[in-house]
Amino acid sequence: MDQPEILLAGPGPSPTSHAVRQAQAAPLLGHLDPDFLAIVDRVQAGLRTLFGTGNEFTLPISGTGSAGMEAVLTNLLEPGDRIVIGVHGVFGQRLVQLARRLQAEVVEVTAEFGTALDPAAMARAIATGPTRVVAVVHAETSTGVLQPLPEIAAAARAAGALFVVDCVTSIGGRELSWDALGVDAAFAGTQKCLSAPPGLSPVTFSPRALARVAARRSPVPSFYFDTTLLVGYFGPGRAYHHTAPISLVAALDAALGEVLAEGLPARSRRHDDVARALRAALQALGLQLLVPDPIATPMLTSVRLPAGVDDKPLRAFLRQAWRIEIGGGLGPLAGRIVRIGLMGHGARPENVRRIVAALADGLARQGVRGDLAAALAAVQC
Amino acid sequence: MDQPEILLAGPGPSPTSHAVRQAQAAPLLGHLDPDFLAIVDRVQAGLRTLFGTGNEFTLPISGTGSAGMEAVLTNLLEPGDRIVIGVHGVFGQRLVQLARRLQAEVVEVTAEFGTALDPAAMARAIATGPTRVVAVVHAETSTGVLQPLPEIAAAARAAGALFVVDCVTSIGGRELSWDALGVDAAFAGTQKCLSAPPGLSPVTFSPRALARVAARRSPVPSFYFDTTLLVGYFGPGRAYHHTAPISLVAALDAALGEVLAEGLPARSRRHDDVARALRAALQALGLQLLVPDPIATPMLTSVRLPAGVDDKPLRAFLRQAWRIEIGGGLGPLAGRIVRIGLMGHGARPENVRRIVAALADGLARQGVRGDLAAALAAVQC
Repeated sequence: MDQPEILLAGPGPSPTSHAVRQAQAAPLLGHLDPDFLAIVDRVQAGLRTLFGTGNEFTLPISGTGSAGMEAVLTNLLEPGDRIVIGVHGVFGQRLVQLARRLQAEVVEVTAEFGTALDPAAMARAIATGPTRVVAVVHAETSTGVLQPLPEIAAAARAAGALFVVDCVTSIGGRELSWDALGVDAAFAGTQKCLSAPPGLSPVTFSPRALARVAARRSPVPSFYFDTTLLVGYFGPGRAYHHTAPISLVAALDAALGEVLAEGLPARSRRHDDVARALRAALQALGLQLLVPDPIATPMLTSVRLPAGVDDKPLRAFLRQAWRIEIGGGLGPLAGRIVRIGLMGHGARPENVRRIVAALADGLARQGVRGDLAAALAAVQC
Repeated sequence: MDQPEILLAGPGPSPTSHAVRQAQAAPLLGHLDPDFLAIVDRVQAGLRTLFGTGNEFTLPISGTGSAGMEAVLTNLLEPGDRIVIGVHGVFGQRLVQLARRLQAEVVEVTAEFGTALDPAAMARAIATGPTRVVAVVHAETSTGVLQPLPEIAAAARAAGALFVVDCVTSIGGRELSWDALGVDAAFAGTQKCLSAPPGLSPVTFSPRALARVAARRSPVPSFYFDTTLLVGYFGPGRAYHHTAPISLVAALDAALGEVLAEGLPARSRRHDDVARALRAALQALGLQLLVPDPIATPMLTSVRLPAGVDDKPLRAFLRQAWRIEIGGGLGPLAGRIVRIGLMGHGARPENVRRIVAALADGLARQGVRGDLAAALAAVQC
């Protein structure tokens, strides 16, 4: 770790501030220490603001975003329950895979990677059977699509289904209003727009969702993720359940402090501004974007690779010569796109310029030349 | 976190060194960055040494000790599988609770909290049916008993069962020899004798255990803990599965470096020496130990509270007036014992003296007076 810092401009983790990093280096407190529990309380309150919810059950799961996904589905689904899942990327596929493991009846509504889900198709699938859960990914990290949610939320509510949203990548970069929208459970990540280290997954469950857990016929097949046990620690009883990742919670507390000090509207605008600049510059360079403007998520931009460009040496060159990490494609997009993340602490105009220059350099070394001066001039922030 | 440091002398977390804390404060690397993967490789090699195993599948699960427990049982057990569990403390009970959630046929072999399991009783239970898994806790953190394992391991092997050991609290404080003993899967913690922050759980699976996973009739009901997916990332393919908790892995790497530099024999002796001193001093103070010498685990000492002493104000006084955290009792021992951990970086003679003086002070304030001078004189290290 004694090498020069790498600019993290992939799909996550994102760069962390000095203060967030140093919060981890404080001497540990015990997980039942009153001073630590005060930090936990503050983290829960901050997460409620970010999710846009008043849900009492709002807390960081002690695992990464996929652990949060598992905490949500494992509590809400029982064998045979019908779940309608929107699949327009790798993380929708992951929801399907997990729901199948939990022996749910899975109905997939698919859209091509790089496009948004069709709300009418979702509504038809939801109405076709007695649907327990509807789940969609808000910002698909594998493609860079920001899924519009209101129509799907309304269809789920009309059918009496619980509405679940993956907001791993959008939290802290958009203003979320999950109560107003009618989201019953959501899971998030810390290492994207929150710019905290990975290892925790903020989740929230509405009272309706918790009532579903309470009405289960079978026990939750997990001890670690069982919401009824988690409230024992996060609730007033403060009963030992597992040892919280103390240093990560301290880092998340520091990161939430920075997010709330900036304010969500300003932070959301900052993500929009740098994304707009990046997209303009990439197009000025002659590159094609995977996702059209109206459904593009600002924190993650997917760029089609020109014909003949090899993905791995391009990314290796950026890491080696420019100390910049960007992401490759996943699933059917592997080798066809690169993904550029401008998230949280990393969503800055200087990073846009540096990344555009690096990418132009890397592409030129594979014989693809664009007008870098025009691209840099297109950066209007 | 800006208050004076608290001496962590409870059941965990233990104190961390400055270097381990600072390892978390380095700028993040990506979870697929070659420099980070080199750290992962080194961590895996270090964990193999600590477990005493050559198992290729040896890695840190991205969650705390209970997540490691879940990773082991969720992969190895299918509905209807028979598991014999030794229960002599809260963590044995937790194994039972988890196995039941996984719909296993659970056979409990119990021993009074504070005593060791009877190997003959375990052997009888194992031989009674076709047993898939035998699971015991090595160092029971709820009582302070160090369970002798060879006879139970032999009985498990004779029955063709997989032998699972919880070594959350013993790893890094004892020389473990899991291959020689015939352990098929084990899970551990980072926040005890390894003196790394909590949030990771080292696990190891033998080839026999992995063959069992491969032969499952049903999918593992977890995506996050599925060993066949974890090898995709930890194996040569380096496929994305979930984002590793990068800063925690860096801290674990630093902690393992300190453990291996000290050497396991010397580290084990250090834990023995301070535990012997603590036990002698507590007895010189007139206190009774819960666990007799031959089966007492050195890293955690349980002390019976004298009649009339109230547990909570005693611990609150130690925290407030001495800045020392010790643990209370769990389950049937709640209010009846306190637990003193001398683990890893905290297993030092000066801490023994400080804790003994603090405990004598706290007990005196509840009317129980002992000979503190004699107790301190009994500290022979």
